[in-house]
Amino acid sequence: MTNRSIVLAARPVGVPKQSDFRLEEAPVSSPGAGECLVKVHYMSVDPYMRGRISGRKSYAAPVEIGQVMVGASVGQVIESNSDRIAVGDYVTGALGWREYAIASAEDLRVVDASAAPLSAYLGVLGMPGLTAYYGLLKVAGIESGETVCVSGAAGAVGSAVGQIARLHGCRAVGIAGGSDKCSLVTGEFGFDAAVDYKSDGFFKTLRAATPDGIDVYFDNVGGPVTDAVFQQLNVRSRVAICGQISQYNAVDAPVGPRLLWHFITKRIRAEGFLVFDFRKHDDESLAQMAAWVRDGKLKYRETVAEGIENAAAAFIGMLGGANIGKQVVKLAGD
Amino acid sequence: MTNRSIVLAARPVGVPKQSDFRLEEAPVSSPGAGECLVKVHYMSVDPYMRGRISGRKSYAAPVEIGQVMVGASVGQVIESNSDRIAVGDYVTGALGWREYAIASAEDLRVVDASAAPLSAYLGVLGMPGLTAYYGLLKVAGIESGETVCVSGAAGAVGSAVGQIARLHGCRAVGIAGGSDKCSLVTGEFGFDAAVDYKSDGFFKTLRAATPDGIDVYFDNVGGPVTDAVFQQLNVRSRVAICGQISQYNAVDAPVGPRLLWHFITKRIRAEGFLVFDFRKHDDESLAQMAAWVRDGKLKYRETVAEGIENAAAAFIGMLGGANIGKQVVKLAGD
Repeated sequence: MTNRSIVLAARPVGVPKQSDFRLEEAPVSSPGAGECLVKVHYMSVDPYMRGRISGRKSYAAPVEIGQVMVGASVGQVIESNSDRIAVGDYVTGALGWREYAIASAEDLRVVDASAAPLSAYLGVLGMPGLTAYYGLLKVAGIESGETVCVSGAAGAVGSAVGQIARLHGCRAVGIAGGSDKCSLVTGEFGFDAAVDYKSDGFFKTLRAATPDGIDVYFDNVGGPVTDAVFQQLNVRSRVAICGQISQYNAVDAPVGPRLLWHFITKRIRAEGFLVFDFRKHDDESLAQMAAWVRDGKLKYRETVAEGIENAAAAFIGMLGGANIGKQVVKLAGD
Repeated sequence: MTNRSIVLAARPVGVPKQSDFRLEEAPVSSPGAGECLVKVHYMSVDPYMRGRISGRKSYAAPVEIGQVMVGASVGQVIESNSDRIAVGDYVTGALGWREYAIASAEDLRVVDASAAPLSAYLGVLGMPGLTAYYGLLKVAGIESGETVCVSGAAGAVGSAVGQIARLHGCRAVGIAGGSDKCSLVTGEFGFDAAVDYKSDGFFKTLRAATPDGIDVYFDNVGGPVTDAVFQQLNVRSRVAICGQISQYNAVDAPVGPRLLWHFITKRIRAEGFLVFDFRKHDDESLAQMAAWVRDGKLKYRETVAEGIENAAAAFIGMLGGANIGKQVVKLAGD
């Protein structure tokens, strides 16, 4: 059996290009003691990966040139040397951009393929869903009646943020790019309002959509969108800083209006966070998310690319906002 | 008796000018029921006043053209219609830039003129001292062994910040402008290190002075100084945003490197605060500060201007960093 994987061919400068990635082939090897061989059905491409392939110092070691791209996948175990995980089980884990992956059973989470489509474990029932959950409940701290604003509202994280906020009695205002995404945000995802940051009257519309200001801002985007939101923040507002996707392809250090003065006059608290800092709560949190999904209270969308040879294009498109909901790449399965 | 006061003559554009202020004379009036007439000995000029005379929306109503400048003063009661405060008592309060002030007894705090020089109640035993105390202990939360960095380290707030940090077992690193201020910071104020932001090798020196990074940053200054400090912040560091004096005279909206990405990779928490949000703790906090001052553990310096006619110059100079320690204006007394 041949295993295809995607390695980093060059460090991207600015917007990543196809030529920054390379497809490699090698025979599938056999799992060692305590390991499983997983046939990947879906792999995830996420904004954070842009940071991992830049040379910038960050919270995790970068992917080196020639190394397989990092990322979470979901698939089926086809060989197992573990007592805990059986052949046929469906699992998720940080398996990288490859069609077959070997991983220690300890690093795999068994998922219930009958409870939700497999790909959901990369989205609403995976890292993006947990990110939304923790950012709102553990970082920002939301209270019923507050106005919660989220940028990247049509994305995997953002779409969950607004819905979880509403499930807690908040008013949810989403910022997204384009009228299609905005329609989805207020329609399918049920936000109270959506604001198109690409439209001319963006700031005016944002003000109209937040007549009582903004109590919690969940930031996935950064840049000028966030500059505008800061104008609308209320006294004692909280900002959960999850991502800054508008800045990830920047070649020069991004520059913008200085925001710290707002912090004083409005006693803003802002905190950056990473989903894996809250790992000990994952079981409980995923159970809650799964219950909401099952009951139709938490909806999600996916954009699905097909074939590992299209993973780089899916990743590049996602960075530019081409996706709606979670961007995944389907490698196998029905 | 004639009362002299300083009113706002024009909204400053950029650096305030003498002509933005006007001295006015009027007869001293008599206190009403429950009020006291105070002869001011010292009045305070502080960075926050720059915000109060700009047109910008802020946490308090601006001083209008023709109104007396706001500010805290300390003086002696010369007439009293209050049961609680007697003629001869020394008091502090928000009395404005005037030689004689009438205030409700409820808005005055009686101070112990035998425990410390009167002017100290405008500095280390007043708003600036409390600001340092709350910013470290209530906002940032410091722990023994941490590195605490403060900008504006030779000023009224900053000098107290470093000393309080050291009293809690922290390493204190101060940033100040010029070698005289830096000598004072490590000498009189006993910081572990001082870094001159006006020197060529500022960032290199800052790095050398914070070999284990920075756990808590107490920001009085903002701008490029703060940009440099952000490079040195540790994972899970806290930023207490107290002031942004480098930005207060800006005519155009200040621009600088975007900082929010740092928040994510380092899980930074930043919070802006105002001293009066913690008012309920003032008695207890001032008692602690007074004990430290009495025991020689908390030192302070003052820059004293003489006469209300020099108040505007003192204020303008302070905004440019001409002061060392607390800038006050002496109006009466020994």
